[in-house]
Amino acid sequence: MNPLRVVLVAPRNPLNIGAAARAISNFGFSELRLVNPYELAFREARSAVKAQKILAEAREYPTLAEAVADCGLVVGTTSIGPRALEHPLRRLELGGRLIAKKLAAGPVALLFGSEKFGLSNEDMSYCHWLLRIPTREEHGSMNLGQAVAVCLYEIIRNPAAAKAKPESRRAAHAEDLERITTLLEEVLERSGYVHARVEGSTRMKIRRLLRRMDLNAHDAEVWLGMLRQIRWKLVS
Amino acid sequence: MNPLRVVLVAPRNPLNIGAAARAISNFGFSELRLVNPYELAFREARSAVKAQKILAEAREYPTLAEAVADCGLVVGTTSIGPRALEHPLRRLELGGRLIAKKLAAGPVALLFGSEKFGLSNEDMSYCHWLLRIPTREEHGSMNLGQAVAVCLYEIIRNPAAAKAKPESRRAAHAEDLERITTLLEEVLERSGYVHARVEGSTRMKIRRLLRRMDLNAHDAEVWLGMLRQIRWKLVS
Repeated sequence: MNPLRVVLVAPRNPLNIGAAARAISNFGFSELRLVNPYELAFREARSAVKAQKILAEAREYPTLAEAVADCGLVVGTTSIGPRALEHPLRRLELGGRLIAKKLAAGPVALLFGSEKFGLSNEDMSYCHWLLRIPTREEHGSMNLGQAVAVCLYEIIRNPAAAKAKPESRRAAHAEDLERITTLLEEVLERSGYVHARVEGSTRMKIRRLLRRMDLNAHDAEVWLGMLRQIRWKLVS
Repeated sequence: MNPLRVVLVAPRNPLNIGAAARAISNFGFSELRLVNPYELAFREARSAVKAQKILAEAREYPTLAEAVADCGLVVGTTSIGPRALEHPLRRLELGGRLIAKKLAAGPVALLFGSEKFGLSNEDMSYCHWLLRIPTREEHGSMNLGQAVAVCLYEIIRNPAAAKAKPESRRAAHAEDLERITTLLEEVLERSGYVHARVEGSTRMKIRRLLRRMDLNAHDAEVWLGMLRQIRWKLVS
C-alpha cells in the first residue's frame, strides 16, 4: 500500500473532492485526508463515481497538524512563484522525484489548499518544502482536481518508459517491397497514369516512394493483395 | 503560438469542456476543437472561469476528419490496454516526448473521446498512433478534464528541471555552528538539563546533533539569537 497521504485543506466543492479521490484511485494511491472541509461538500462527494472506497475511508481532521502528524515529509503545493515565498520551492519535475524516493521510507503528505485561496502562510509553515506545477505565470492557478491528478501522475511516472522501444512488428523484407514496386508499375501502366513502359527514372521514384512508407510485413501483404485485385480488374 | 490542437470528440459535460479549456490555458496552449459536442454542454461551458478566450475561440466541427484536417500528426488517447487495440500504443512518458518534438514542425491533434465511451474504433482509425496515461489496470479510465491536464503537463514537462539545483542559500560556516554548540551547552547547564559542566561525550553528541540540522547561514543566525535570549533570561 502506497503511503502517500493526499491532504485537501478546506476544500469547498464536492466535485473536486470526488475528482481528487478518482485520481488517487487511477494512479494506485489510497489515502485521502480532509482538513476542515466544508461539511456539505464532503457529504455530497461521498457519491462520486468509481472511487467510493477511497471516499468512504477518507478521514477528516480539525487541524492540519493532526492530518500530517504521522508523516516523515510534508509538501505543500502552490501556484505562487518563488519571489513571494519564505519556503524552498521545487518544480514538480524534481519535487515529484523526491516524493517518490521518500515514499519508499514511509508516509509523505501532499497538501492542496482550498479552491479559492490555496494554502495559507500558516498552512505552509507545516511544510518541509513547496511544490509548483510548471503552469504559465499569467494563469498559474489550476483546478483542484486537475492539480491533484498532475502531481500524482508525476509521482508514479516512470522515466524509463520515456525511452522508445524497438518496434515489435517485423519490417517488410526487400523482396516484398520489390514485388509491390513491380505490381504498382504494372497497375500504373494499365490505368494510363504512365503512358508507355515505365522508364528507369520513374521506376526509381516509385521504389523510393515505397521505401519511405516504412512498411511492416503485415501491411506489405495487404498492399500486395489490393494491387493484385486492381490489376485483375484492369486486365479483365 | 503552440500549434497543439486539443480535440474533444462528442463531449457531454460542460464542466469537462471548461476544465479542458482551463488546462489548455494553464500550460500555455491555445486551441480547443470540439467534434459534435452535446450542444447544451458547449453553450454552458462558455461561462467557465479564466479560460474565456480559449472557449470563445473554440471551433466546432461536424466530423473528426474536418477537425484534424490541418494536422501533421493525429494522436488518440485511450485507457484500454494494448491487447484489444489494432493501433500502435505508447505510454504518455514516451508519447508526450514525441508530440513535443513534432510540435516544432507544425500542428498536432490530440484527441479525447466522450466521457462515457472514449474514442470509437472509427475515431481511432484517423490516428497515427494512440497514447495511454499509465493509470492502474483496475481503474484505468480518468475524468476527461483531468486526463487533458495530465497529457498537457507531460508535453510541456522539462526533463532538465528534474535535476536538483545546488542550494542557493549559503550553508552555515563551521564557526557559526561552533558558536551555537557552545551557547546551547551553556543554556542546557543553566536550565539543569545537564547537571554538572557538560562532559566531552555530551559535547560531541550536541555537536553532531547541530551538524545534522544542515543549517544555512540565515537559520544559524536565528538560532544564535534565540539561544542568546534564553541564556540572558536564565542568568538574570
